[in-house]
Amino acid sequence: MPAPHPRLLWRDVTIFDGERELPVPMAVLVEGGRIAKLCPSEALPATDPASVRDMGRGGVMTPGLVDCHTHLVFGGNRADEFARRLEGASYAEIAQAGGGILSTVRATRAASEDELLAAALPRLAALVADGVTTVEIKSGYGLTLADELKMLRVARRLGERLPVRTVTTLLGAHALPPEYKDDQDGYIRLVCEEMIPAAAAAGLADAVDVFCEGIAFSPAQCERVFAAAAHHGLRVKAHAEQLSNLGGAALAARHGALSADHIEYLDETGVRALAEAGTVATLLPGAFLTLRETQLPPVDALRRQGVPMAIATDANPGSSPLFMPTLMLNLACTLFRLTPREALAGMTANGARALDLADTGRIAEGLRADLCVWDAGSATELAYAVQPGRLRQRVFNGEITHNRSQEAR
Amino acid sequence: MPAPHPRLLWRDVTIFDGERELPVPMAVLVEGGRIAKLCPSEALPATDPASVRDMGRGGVMTPGLVDCHTHLVFGGNRADEFARRLEGASYAEIAQAGGGILSTVRATRAASEDELLAAALPRLAALVADGVTTVEIKSGYGLTLADELKMLRVARRLGERLPVRTVTTLLGAHALPPEYKDDQDGYIRLVCEEMIPAAAAAGLADAVDVFCEGIAFSPAQCERVFAAAAHHGLRVKAHAEQLSNLGGAALAARHGALSADHIEYLDETGVRALAEAGTVATLLPGAFLTLRETQLPPVDALRRQGVPMAIATDANPGSSPLFMPTLMLNLACTLFRLTPREALAGMTANGARALDLADTGRIAEGLRADLCVWDAGSATELAYAVQPGRLRQRVFNGEITHNRSQEAR
Ligand SMILES: [Zn+2]
Ligand SMILES: [Zn+2]
Repeated sequence: MPAPHPRLLWRDVTIFDGERELPVPMAVLVEGGRIAKLCPSEALPATDPASVRDMGRGGVMTPGLVDCHTHLVFGGNRADEFARRLEGASYAEIAQAGGGILSTVRATRAASEDELLAAALPRLAALVADGVTTVEIKSGYGLTLADELKMLRVARRLGERLPVRTVTTLLGAHALPPEYKDDQDGYIRLVCEEMIPAAAAAGLADAVDVFCEGIAFSPAQCERVFAAAAHHGLRVKAHAEQLSNLGGAALAARHGALSADHIEYLDETGVRALAEAGTVATLLPGAFLTLRETQLPPVDALRRQGVPMAIATDANPGSSPLFMPTLMLNLACTLFRLTPREALAGMTANGARALDLADTGRIAEGLRADLCVWDAGSATELAYAVQPGRLRQRVFNGEITHNRSQEAR
Repeated sequence: MPAPHPRLLWRDVTIFDGERELPVPMAVLVEGGRIAKLCPSEALPATDPASVRDMGRGGVMTPGLVDCHTHLVFGGNRADEFARRLEGASYAEIAQAGGGILSTVRATRAASEDELLAAALPRLAALVADGVTTVEIKSGYGLTLADELKMLRVARRLGERLPVRTVTTLLGAHALPPEYKDDQDGYIRLVCEEMIPAAAAAGLADAVDVFCEGIAFSPAQCERVFAAAAHHGLRVKAHAEQLSNLGGAALAARHGALSADHIEYLDETGVRALAEAGTVATLLPGAFLTLRETQLPPVDALRRQGVPMAIATDANPGSSPLFMPTLMLNLACTLFRLTPREALAGMTANGARALDLADTGRIAEGLRADLCVWDAGSATELAYAVQPGRLRQRVFNGEITHNRSQEAR
């Protein structure tokens, strides 16, 4: 009977450790779910072949990918709306036909927990098959106490169905539900006084998110949400500066936010606020592409101020129906002009940082063995080419979850 | 022993037949490598279950995808150049460092036929795994008689290694090789008087392509290539109007071109020329994205004049290192504003038309059984969401090459 955590040994792999590509071929030994040894291959002590499983040589090893911003759980889809818009329908016509985010809210409310789980599973499976070992999943299409908790329960259950770590975020303040059409503050009260306490008490949310924007909630309203989250011991984050500059990212930073996400319209002052607070800037090229935005996030300023940049799919049914993290590596380079190194760090070390996870997203001795090995000659190639099928091996918590022999190709 | 072509039966599938989604659930029977029957499921006559293999119910069936424009065979890659550019190197610095298309020419010339084959196989496998059953592959990185023929032989051999139809195109007039730096006409003479006759005599090329552009070859030079191709009985096509309007597409159309490709800068006169000649307009959103172009192809004019639009990956190491046809369905919609129906037709019926193939790319009785079945509720979803892993079944020439049971998900 194999041990639950066999010792796994790789030799002569090119390592991207979460921050950079290491200069010499490395050996990696995994034991007890952790990275037990990381050293140059030529420095590897003699190993009893009977005591380890030989995982092969060559390829590029990265940390398992961390997708730190998704909306994977939702009812229905918006394919018809996508088509109607391309056939010439205006936003007003689509709204009149019941389209937009509220159509997803209706479908999510109408779906049972099991139905939402079944619908989300293939989407999550696509991320997992593309190398994701940790994924954040937000609520935000329920917009009632019961439906938001239902979404969070589905997010938790997803992690029990597939070999992936799920981190959940309560995003009650995502959009104004129709029944609060004339009472935005009343809805924020519901978020602060019912949703946050209930999610916290049930242990269903790891953090609290808001959408700070003209079409969503004001900075003052978001601040009330942040205060309620803090009161219940939950960290915060924000969708901010996506379509305009309301100062939402700086506000979130002042409340110790884990990340400020989108931030195309962030100015220097906002960048400085992120730097001072140690808040991660999460860039979402999929939404930028899908919405055909032209305002680029302030990448140079983020670099100058040393703000860590994460990259995520923002996988969602409206503005980013793109369930493919490795595509985001390429888009982050092509659209946002990140270097391949920055893009990879954004989906590994900095993605983990945006989720407050200290022991994944990097390759170092002692850390959790969440690892991917890719058919590639360098880490750069992973961002350069979009080519599904390069994932050779995937290890989650020290367990092999995917292992395609090189010969099989 | 199973028959080489078992009878395969699908029921209750949603069919996109190459031009449109059929309105009712259909049954499809495949026999002898061909589509033997296509009818509404409820009209299916009683079938002896012992005489057919039940392929299941539901899902969306499309023709196998046709990728009608690729440069899959090449030596090396340009990942380092991709990184250097993002790190701030100028085009001049990259050229000085030996980058650009000529670096691919050097690597391709230096590679043996077997090395080129081995390098191209995983790229082709990625297309095949994403639903491609027919792929066009161009030469154009050899730029000597021997190296162009070497590339074409590799393209032919690729089709023997994987279950996919390859169509080959001689693209000798792709770029000016360094040894002809001061003798562009001399190089065109080499293409016309040596490459085309040799490729035709060896049966290695199905068509002849040119790059008509300020940075490549003039319309007058391209016209000489077209004349030589005609003299040897080969159809032509052109990379044209990608970066400027030189009239290359109209010129190609006058020479009976199968397709004019890229055509972002095509004007109304050019569109009319395509319409009159029955030339396909092949749109390449991957290169548009990677080069961050802003000039959109004249989609409305193409629609008005009834020019068939194909979509392809343009898979190549420089301007489109994107080896994923289903991504192009999405990008054609998002970037070029095609409807999902047009995008799908572009990678099925119109892709086949661009390759002069009458019996693939559509689902109709009597045609070749090149088919894909996808986990989706409608054909529209295939263009709306980028989600690898939805390909449930793939049939090439009536043979099952991929078959994931629904239960396995
Ligand atoms: Zn979001
Ligand atoms: Zn091309």
